[in-house]
Amino acid sequence: MIDGKEKKFFSTESPEMIVIHYKDVITAFANIKRAIMKGKGEVNCTISSILFKYLNDNGIATHFIEQQAPCEMLCHKISLIPIEIRVRNCAAGSMAERLGLEEGAPLSNVVVDLGYNCDELENPMINEDEACAMGLATREELGYMREQTLKINSLLTNLFASVGIRLMSIKMEFGRSVKDGSIIMSDEISPDTCRLWDENTGEKLDKDRFRHDLGNVLSSYKKVLEKLKSI
Amino acid sequence: MIDGKEKKFFSTESPEMIVIHYKDVITAFANIKRAIMKGKGEVNCTISSILFKYLNDNGIATHFIEQQAPCEMLCHKISLIPIEIRVRNCAAGSMAERLGLEEGAPLSNVVVDLGYNCDELENPMINEDEACAMGLATREELGYMREQTLKINSLLTNLFASVGIRLMSIKMEFGRSVKDGSIIMSDEISPDTCRLWDENTGEKLDKDRFRHDLGNVLSSYKKVLEKLKSI
Repeated sequence: MIDGKEKKFFSTESPEMIVIHYKDVITAFANIKRAIMKGKGEVNCTISSILFKYLNDNGIATHFIEQQAPCEMLCHKISLIPIEIRVRNCAAGSMAERLGLEEGAPLSNVVVDLGYNCDELENPMINEDEACAMGLATREELGYMREQTLKINSLLTNLFASVGIRLMSIKMEFGRSVKDGSIIMSDEISPDTCRLWDENTGEKLDKDRFRHDLGNVLSSYKKVLEKLKSI
Repeated sequence: MIDGKEKKFFSTESPEMIVIHYKDVITAFANIKRAIMKGKGEVNCTISSILFKYLNDNGIATHFIEQQAPCEMLCHKISLIPIEIRVRNCAAGSMAERLGLEEGAPLSNVVVDLGYNCDELENPMINEDEACAMGLATREELGYMREQTLKINSLLTNLFASVGIRLMSIKMEFGRSVKDGSIIMSDEISPDTCRLWDENTGEKLDKDRFRHDLGNVLSSYKKVLEKLKSI
């Protein structure tokens, strides 16, 4: 078993599959801010399962097989690529701060930026040339991941819009399937990895509530789950 | 006249040309560290003139027309694109620090990264999607600039190698020609904008001597000039 920041990873009888257990833990700012949050594991595991299933059904290769318990997903085992890909439909988060843009400001095109997954360096920004030069991924893999992230962003934007939520940004991770080496989407898809604003009220329904001490973190996550369940 | 950090810009009788005067000033860290350095203006203006002429002669469109006085270059007038393009032949500077790499470490491919020219934000890293979304340049302009920077890097790497200097990295700026809107290389090419290491001794011959208080700043710049004059 590997005990991660917010998840535990268990091996299974098959070397090609693992079980991912979602913990009742929330972290931010490269693990500097942390808290216990009872019930969060189940909410995020369920939201992730709904969204991964939706992507699988729409032709996107993900690591998700099935939700086999309230906090547990059975997944294809991958070798993680240490890059997080952030797709931004408006200015937000570290990008808005870095470039002096107002949070929520519209952008004339979707923006993809890459982060190097390394807590010690505080997950710095990286570009494709650098990721190649450091051997994190090949040029072809990076091109494929970019293509997939844009498709995934488009699918999820539409899905969330159908339940009155704006997908402002999303962070994704990919890995190489242990089975055949193909690149598949991994990690999770939840209010921890997406910025989600209520379409009508502008209320934030995501981890920014925890990052910036806005309160009602778990109840907001639950709102997202309830809306998705209504589909 | 516009009085910049390290240069003054004078209009001429032609609306399509300007005179750029190199000041005896050196700055670093987004203008936080500054010093007067008598004689630096002439050295940098002369180095820049030699290198711009070399690029012009090799088919690269630059703003340089001629050095018309020790500290003065006559140039095509441009509207500056507020992006600095850094080409790195090895890990160095902000990139090495950001990604936890050793200064001077080899890279398996040349790395291009972009900075948003904005002192108030400390010239943050930016990517092509973001530069487009902010309207700083079009996708086509960015593609053309990338292509040009790689050609320029290759030409200057060879030129410096012929005088025993390794071009470790170079920072470039581009602008739109006032005359016809075409994209041309602007700014300067000097030990202020290049990392230059003596091929044999590894001695630094560039602005890192000023940034990191290594001493002998101007004499190192003069060494570069002497070597280039020997061609």
